[in-house]
Amino acid sequence: MNTIKTAEILCVGTELLLGDIVNTNAAFLSQRLAELGICVYRHTAVGDNPERLKAALDSALASADMVITSGGLGPTYDDLTKETVASRFGLEMKLHEESLERISTYFARTGRKMPPNNEKQAMMPVGAHVFTNNYGTAPALAVSAELSDFSEAGEAQHKTVIMLPGPPGELIPLFNEEVVPYLRERSDSVLVSRNIHIFGMGESAVEEEIKSIMTDSENPTVAPYCKEGEVRLRVTAKADSEQEAARMCDETVKLIENSTVGRFIYGIDTVSLEKALVDALHRHGLTVCCAESCTGGMIAERITAVAGCSDVFLGGCVTYTNEIKQALLGVSGETLEKYGAVSAQTAMEMARGARERLGTDIAVSATGLAGPGGGTADTPVGTVFIGLSTKEGETFRKLSLSAMRSREYIRIVSASNALDMALKAIKSLSNN
Amino acid sequence: MNTIKTAEILCVGTELLLGDIVNTNAAFLSQRLAELGICVYRHTAVGDNPERLKAALDSALASADMVITSGGLGPTYDDLTKETVASRFGLEMKLHEESLERISTYFARTGRKMPPNNEKQAMMPVGAHVFTNNYGTAPALAVSAELSDFSEAGEAQHKTVIMLPGPPGELIPLFNEEVVPYLRERSDSVLVSRNIHIFGMGESAVEEEIKSIMTDSENPTVAPYCKEGEVRLRVTAKADSEQEAARMCDETVKLIENSTVGRFIYGIDTVSLEKALVDALHRHGLTVCCAESCTGGMIAERITAVAGCSDVFLGGCVTYTNEIKQALLGVSGETLEKYGAVSAQTAMEMARGARERLGTDIAVSATGLAGPGGGTADTPVGTVFIGLSTKEGETFRKLSLSAMRSREYIRIVSASNALDMALKAIKSLSNN
Repeated sequence: MNTIKTAEILCVGTELLLGDIVNTNAAFLSQRLAELGICVYRHTAVGDNPERLKAALDSALASADMVITSGGLGPTYDDLTKETVASRFGLEMKLHEESLERISTYFARTGRKMPPNNEKQAMMPVGAHVFTNNYGTAPALAVSAELSDFSEAGEAQHKTVIMLPGPPGELIPLFNEEVVPYLRERSDSVLVSRNIHIFGMGESAVEEEIKSIMTDSENPTVAPYCKEGEVRLRVTAKADSEQEAARMCDETVKLIENSTVGRFIYGIDTVSLEKALVDALHRHGLTVCCAESCTGGMIAERITAVAGCSDVFLGGCVTYTNEIKQALLGVSGETLEKYGAVSAQTAMEMARGARERLGTDIAVSATGLAGPGGGTADTPVGTVFIGLSTKEGETFRKLSLSAMRSREYIRIVSASNALDMALKAIKSLSNN
Repeated sequence: MNTIKTAEILCVGTELLLGDIVNTNAAFLSQRLAELGICVYRHTAVGDNPERLKAALDSALASADMVITSGGLGPTYDDLTKETVASRFGLEMKLHEESLERISTYFARTGRKMPPNNEKQAMMPVGAHVFTNNYGTAPALAVSAELSDFSEAGEAQHKTVIMLPGPPGELIPLFNEEVVPYLRERSDSVLVSRNIHIFGMGESAVEEEIKSIMTDSENPTVAPYCKEGEVRLRVTAKADSEQEAARMCDETVKLIENSTVGRFIYGIDTVSLEKALVDALHRHGLTVCCAESCTGGMIAERITAVAGCSDVFLGGCVTYTNEIKQALLGVSGETLEKYGAVSAQTAMEMARGARERLGTDIAVSATGLAGPGGGTADTPVGTVFIGLSTKEGETFRKLSLSAMRSREYIRIVSASNALDMALKAIKSLSNN
């Protein structure tokens, strides 16, 4: 078995070159390959043009052990990835009965008749490893062989090409379910990763706190990623067995959990703050609702993006004017007059009003200035109050985000803080 | 002056190859270049690796008239784009006083002292065209020359490289403000585009309706783009003057407006349905609110993403349970029992309840099954009712989206339908 250490990613499709779609596949594949310990040298995107595709394939094969392609596997005449790779490897095409069966079943399931040109999708290079695509009609396959024309001395080099369909809805599950095991089998060691999700501590503060863990350890490695107020630490261990790699990962995760960063961790290998919140609410049999001003529905939108939230999320109010804060949430006119709409008092009354009216265990609120206009010297753009109400009473968090930040950023970070306060409230409620 | 007809995009940065960021620059640049009539052959992304950068630059210059790079213009030793291009063109580097001045002013403005290594950013290849970057410290520049080593006969070919910083917050405004005029000056004709935004008609139906306009006309061209239930037609005309190109565009736009597609057009050169809605509400002095079940806050979130919405958007309710639909919106228990939560009657009562309670001119609602679970034979996943209430009464729209669609898709298309119904209600209200 030949070990795959380096890769190039080759995306095929004129729509990429027209800028009609953003190449998220290249980023997804790169991230997953990095986790598998495979180094990515280059991304290339070319159109549905046979010569340029051939040139790009040649150039990628010359520099890396493996090329992963996306796109160009459709049923029409200009879908040429499979044919181009087969010809490069000197392989003939042959009808693959299982694939034909799979494609016609796919059409039958959606109540349609298979058009004749879809038969093209069931043609496979002889000797290809065919992945089962349960997500569409396109094929997914790997070919590999010793090729001797990349070395000047004519030395044979093992080269692999993995071809995946372009739509991320097919490429992502196919890669995770079929290609990862295929690559694991072709690796001389096993990599295991854990993602530590952190909210409420900046990237540089996190790095400062766990500097010694990060620099002392070459295996596992600890790599930070940050995005809109969140930090993710990816811990990756390499070992001879999965168990050993997992054990090494868990040891480092424990070290980080026991550091000062620990109390800002909201989950290990979770998807998002909202997913962590919905899961925790389910676990503890608690319910949540929200009352939003500057976030304008984003807290509710994020919670309800999680499938299965309806047992734990009951509803929310978006109250963009003082009158509606009073009418829907019972915020007192006096509070609004005395402290203003953007104040801790208003945030807490909004949360209390929502909790009482919707009858949940927890309510969170957000009121602030997302900009770009509307700031004053006392209350600049970026000032946001997050309120929390539970049976234990009300509390708040004040955010002072930079007025240079975009409206979108301020809203996202505000909503994240509300989700984080709700998560922390669950801990507090379930400890009492 | 040499006309630039073809381009390649070369993005530099190890973070791209690790998949830490998605290459949105390549899509942005491709779209803008297509609008300028420049054909993009290939996208390439390489890491901060001098040899691979040099090889990628050479390969791109060999195939296209122009290469646009993004990234690798920072102050550190591994930022090498400028140096690599200068060396390829045989140009020496020299301190560019204006850039040094600009960078130190930039630091002064943010209250910091310029670190010495930022001086590197003010070094420019002799003869470069320097663009003024008002958005960061990185340089932005173009070099061009006759190079004779790409043709076998040694014939000189005019080649241009435009170097832009990697962060989209710098690249996008720099491209629009500085590079577009630069490229226009180097073009033998002027291109003008108009974007026609369409909602409520599928891509193939739109193409069918305006087939003759699309195929009869080579100039202007009409190109369709579709995304989550929306279709955008880009009309692009080429002429000797901007006025002439604009006139040609407007003529074609008028043809399309007068076709059967016309009544599905919600805007020309607008940003989104929500922006079109907020603008129309402002224009007519009307207000809106919403009542959401399956969209879970997304309608409100999208409207409030538009800066300046607070004069026209008053608030909304997210009602995820029957009890809360009754409590917050006054939906009758009888309606819920008789027709169910996912019904035209409930959608209309939700809208009416929101409009009465929040006191707006228009209210929209959404109730349906976004899945993945919860579907029945009578009401499969993808069934959504959109309600509308104005002083003229209530109405509804029933959506039957495919149950194969993702929860996200169903929610987005439902919210878009609500925004579209609100937009159409404005027309109806302002005609009466």
